[in-house]
Amino acid sequence: MRRLVPLAASALLLAAAATARADEGMWLLDAFPSDLVKARHGFGPDRAWLDRVRLASVRLAGGCSGSFVSPDGLVLTNHHCAAGCISQLSTAERDLTASGYLAATVADERRCPEIEVNVLVETRDVTARVRKATEGLGDAEFNAAQKAEMTRIEQECAEKGRWRCDVVTLFHGGAYHLYRYERHQDVRLVFAPEMAIAFFGGDPDNFMFPRYDMDVSLLRVYRDDKPLRVKDFFRFDPDGAKEDELVFVSGHPGSTDRLLTVAQLEFRRDVAFPRRLVRLAELRGLLTHFGRGDSERKRISTEDLFSVENSYKAYTGMAEALRDRGMFAAKVAAEQALKARVANDPGLAGRTGRAWDEVAAAMVRYRDFYDRHVLLESGQAFSSELFAIARTLVRGAEERTKPNEKRLREYRDSNLPSVTQRLFSTAPIHPELETLGLSFSLTKLRELLGTGDGAVREVLGNDSPEDLAAALVRGTKLADPAVRKALWEGGKAATDASDDSMIALARRIDDEARAVRKRFEDTVEAPVKQWGERIAQAHFATRKDRTYPDATFTLRLAFGKVAGYLDKGVRVDPITRFRGLFERATGKDPFRLPDSWIAARERLSPDTRMNFASTADIIGGNSGSPVIDRDARLVGLIFDGNIQSLGGAFWFDETVNRAVAVSSAAILEALGKVYGADRLVRELAPR
Amino acid sequence: MRRLVPLAASALLLAAAATARADEGMWLLDAFPSDLVKARHGFGPDRAWLDRVRLASVRLAGGCSGSFVSPDGLVLTNHHCAAGCISQLSTAERDLTASGYLAATVADERRCPEIEVNVLVETRDVTARVRKATEGLGDAEFNAAQKAEMTRIEQECAEKGRWRCDVVTLFHGGAYHLYRYERHQDVRLVFAPEMAIAFFGGDPDNFMFPRYDMDVSLLRVYRDDKPLRVKDFFRFDPDGAKEDELVFVSGHPGSTDRLLTVAQLEFRRDVAFPRRLVRLAELRGLLTHFGRGDSERKRISTEDLFSVENSYKAYTGMAEALRDRGMFAAKVAAEQALKARVANDPGLAGRTGRAWDEVAAAMVRYRDFYDRHVLLESGQAFSSELFAIARTLVRGAEERTKPNEKRLREYRDSNLPSVTQRLFSTAPIHPELETLGLSFSLTKLRELLGTGDGAVREVLGNDSPEDLAAALVRGTKLADPAVRKALWEGGKAATDASDDSMIALARRIDDEARAVRKRFEDTVEAPVKQWGERIAQAHFATRKDRTYPDATFTLRLAFGKVAGYLDKGVRVDPITRFRGLFERATGKDPFRLPDSWIAARERLSPDTRMNFASTADIIGGNSGSPVIDRDARLVGLIFDGNIQSLGGAFWFDETVNRAVAVSSAAILEALGKVYGADRLVRELAPR
Repeated sequence: MRRLVPLAASALLLAAAATARADEGMWLLDAFPSDLVKARHGFGPDRAWLDRVRLASVRLAGGCSGSFVSPDGLVLTNHHCAAGCISQLSTAERDLTASGYLAATVADERRCPEIEVNVLVETRDVTARVRKATEGLGDAEFNAAQKAEMTRIEQECAEKGRWRCDVVTLFHGGAYHLYRYERHQDVRLVFAPEMAIAFFGGDPDNFMFPRYDMDVSLLRVYRDDKPLRVKDFFRFDPDGAKEDELVFVSGHPGSTDRLLTVAQLEFRRDVAFPRRLVRLAELRGLLTHFGRGDSERKRISTEDLFSVENSYKAYTGMAEALRDRGMFAAKVAAEQALKARVANDPGLAGRTGRAWDEVAAAMVRYRDFYDRHVLLESGQAFSSELFAIARTLVRGAEERTKPNEKRLREYRDSNLPSVTQRLFSTAPIHPELETLGLSFSLTKLRELLGTGDGAVREVLGNDSPEDLAAALVRGTKLADPAVRKALWEGGKAATDASDDSMIALARRIDDEARAVRKRFEDTVEAPVKQWGERIAQAHFATRKDRTYPDATFTLRLAFGKVAGYLDKGVRVDPITRFRGLFERATGKDPFRLPDSWIAARERLSPDTRMNFASTADIIGGNSGSPVIDRDARLVGLIFDGNIQSLGGAFWFDETVNRAVAVSSAAILEALGKVYGADRLVRELAPR
Repeated sequence: MRRLVPLAASALLLAAAATARADEGMWLLDAFPSDLVKARHGFGPDRAWLDRVRLASVRLAGGCSGSFVSPDGLVLTNHHCAAGCISQLSTAERDLTASGYLAATVADERRCPEIEVNVLVETRDVTARVRKATEGLGDAEFNAAQKAEMTRIEQECAEKGRWRCDVVTLFHGGAYHLYRYERHQDVRLVFAPEMAIAFFGGDPDNFMFPRYDMDVSLLRVYRDDKPLRVKDFFRFDPDGAKEDELVFVSGHPGSTDRLLTVAQLEFRRDVAFPRRLVRLAELRGLLTHFGRGDSERKRISTEDLFSVENSYKAYTGMAEALRDRGMFAAKVAAEQALKARVANDPGLAGRTGRAWDEVAAAMVRYRDFYDRHVLLESGQAFSSELFAIARTLVRGAEERTKPNEKRLREYRDSNLPSVTQRLFSTAPIHPELETLGLSFSLTKLRELLGTGDGAVREVLGNDSPEDLAAALVRGTKLADPAVRKALWEGGKAATDASDDSMIALARRIDDEARAVRKRFEDTVEAPVKQWGERIAQAHFATRKDRTYPDATFTLRLAFGKVAGYLDKGVRVDPITRFRGLFERATGKDPFRLPDSWIAARERLSPDTRMNFASTADIIGGNSGSPVIDRDARLVGLIFDGNIQSLGGAFWFDETVNRAVAVSSAAILEALGKVYGADRLVRELAPR
């Protein structure tokens, strides 16, 4: 599943600058190599085509992609991208995750509490302005001045309308672009199939191919309580993509690490990934047992378990890629070659020669307090929705007393609509699950920092993690959105005066957490930014290829062919069909078909294309991306990559890296023949 | 906790040959460097002293050490070494793990179902005979011939009496010694304190120092239903070890990897340890939640959870040691130096020059089927007592139809008493826990080998792991020792005819499991043995230092001083006292004192030494080892090492590596003043 997997320290990512070879590349739409694609595949899109694709593509701010598929604001994305909403709209009596959901009429379309849709309206190069603000400054000052200037630029942009404006760092400081989005927060659930078919094969088949999933959902964007009218959208192709066909994927790849320094890769391999994997594995065990033998517990924990298993599998693949000695040696060789070019260039040597050592030194420093940073500041010590809310309230109150550009970045004015959408969400919070998460994460806090650590004593006192977790969940009223609203509006006076248990914890730990954040920003993030920028510039200066930046969860366009591959010597066909789905079903989870599909079997054509693989270069965050043909017709819906694609975080191997999509043919046929959703079929494919 | 942690592939261990520097070394008793110790510490033991220590020391065959502490066969070991027995003698109504146990009279001493005690009577060098049997043979033939010859030697030895005879490979084939033990299987529980004080501080304090644990138990060896009379035993010193005192530790360190090749260390770092850690982490999550909120579930799972958490922490430390780049670079440099010496020695170059490449090639081969090997043959696909019993029955029946020296080694006649002790054990088996383990491990089987794998299909068919696990546990009668006995005695006809679900599974998977075992033995174990032996010989040939072999769970003697150390710049005192225990208690698990200790507080002297640290070189398997002074009086009881000692698997760092022991003073005072065990105090320390 290709939803964005948040990485341990995304601030550390260096943007990549790689050569466009083969079908490689997550290209900026305003620097798309149409001529190269045309030379390779016989077609290269023009500016009008690209603009239309940009406006028909959407971003789900929580970490996914999507696209408009009708003039009435209908959005196609994955089931797993809407899973939060589907679960939040469920109750013990009506579990939409299990049963699926079909809004019979427009009036039945139900608002998602936390989904925000962004449509990219404009991008603008602001590199010169950002550079000017930081000229000649040292590490920590550079960092602070850059963030303040970004906040100013965003604020000026956002004030002109209801926009979402983000300054995006591309090419690791090679360029800074201002992205202006239309922001939509009234997004409603229109259709979702049963989890059993959306995620047929479950964790065992996740990241596998051949595949048989209907990982599809339909949402609709509303404005002023009416379906949004849009000019640009993708029409469904009723047949779906065919073998060898040229396809394009527009979407929002989350992050790649294709040009990290060796020291940064080693940090991931030796520190971040091992820590993360054992944490995910233990959580998986806890959640698996939590949901066993109790249907309500299973219901409320399903989405968390999916998310944990998905990350676990993704990180396992990435960690194994980094332990591949051949691949790692190639990274080392590439870095040495770049260093040698720099050393031989008098114009670069003085400015950039020691950049790699400086970055490496920063990573060594980070080892000393990585655990403390992710526990206290990234919140891994407090795995709880309620704590996240409490921290947002306490910090938000504090930060809003400061001038906009002096705040922690997430509390800048232009970001507050996203903050408050989450904060005031009506999504249910499950106390049992909260206690489970807190108990686990407080245990980890003690385990990783030690019983005698000051912060651990501050948090635990004489309590055990289990008892404290239970007391914290019992002692808070933050599950009630009205309470949250009152505290947010009451500002610092309100949070200071609150005796709510979670607010008190968030207050108690805030100094320690801010201190470790500052240590990270000053001693790791700032030098990595400063020196990393010079490395990126040296890279540009010494190579002439056209390049694409590392992924930054902003709009990109990939291209490729529908194509099979060899897996351990066995040829894998690129397209699966309904026939194979019914053959694979065993009647037992996760290979159990929902009743609707069993009942519809005779009505479905066994030859209908179901899922397909292509060489397009994607990564987590591309989930929900439209797959389109040269006429910009929708032929598929990205939902996964194969297991070999996990190395794509670090490099692209066209021989085996495959993007996996649901065929448009399967979506239309299932909507009509399994779900009787004639209203939607007509909207998607009018006669 | 220093119980032997079974390593992933112990057959791969190369015995080390390191220089005796500082207080380093797990020395053979018949090659103890008394002169070096005398030069360093002013005292060196003579032959009589060493013989007496050997006969007073015992091995617990399950993975621990111990010692005789009275003429009536009383054995002192750790609580965690007897934990299996304590748990097996417990019931839902009377939980001896929680309450502790004190046999008021000899008649109340209760037999442990699975404890076997070994006393080392004699060792003999059989190198020449083993070498002769394998002369000139290639990899697979070498391996088979060597095992057959070992079995023959053991059988001849065992036939002469009720001995346990093991041929031990020392120095990685540098020498083969025959170890003859007296075998005792009637071992009874005399005393155990409450888990809350035996393991005070629980997992957070495990491998930590300062420490406050009474990790103590007393067992008694019986022969012919009477306490065994022994001539050699250790007298308690009532004061315990003092700072700077010279101490000796006799015991059975399980395994060390101090002279593995770099390729073997990389295999552990990159393959075995990461796999094992995520498995343990997930199991930890499952077991933690299994025991939560249900006291009976908690009771039956406590020992498993302890074992998982203990291994998890130990492997975490070892994995981090191997990721220490300085340490790893030193290993690489040492290997290169040895290679250079070999290359420069015409007598060695031809025979040994390519040994490192051959070992590395074997490790590359192993990567391809490591998962399959540990899952199917080491049994990680079937985490269940009942399955282990079924496999023993099925394989034991098959193997016993063959000549002794042709059998799988574990079914050689001389080993059958240990096999049947376990097989006919009256220890309870808990169906819920069995189902939990099987469900987990079958899920892992599918995850690691893939849904389409032949062995996975053979095992799962169309079932889910959960359903199959439940069906297997429901469908077996092997929880009943009488059923097991009948099947064992019925031999192959009985197991072939059985329709027991577990027997059927063990039969069904046996061909696949034997095939992967053979592949391992022929393509990995055999070349590693053959070439590793040459590396060891080259090491001996090119260096002149006296050396000790890598640990092999056989009797060794270590020496050192009671000494503190610097932990991140802070001085840690080597001795803790009762005062500190009461200061550390919070009233909440795992820092909650049992009622007996709270009640006894006023009677206890706060100055009594409780735990202490020394520089003696130990490792897992040394748990329960006596710490003795130069007069061979017992001054302490090893139960742990500090966290810095985990790197001891690979090297010894005297500045921070510390063995952790309970003071004899604490044991005597607690027996008398907390438990009123006057009978035992008189036996241990007669006036």
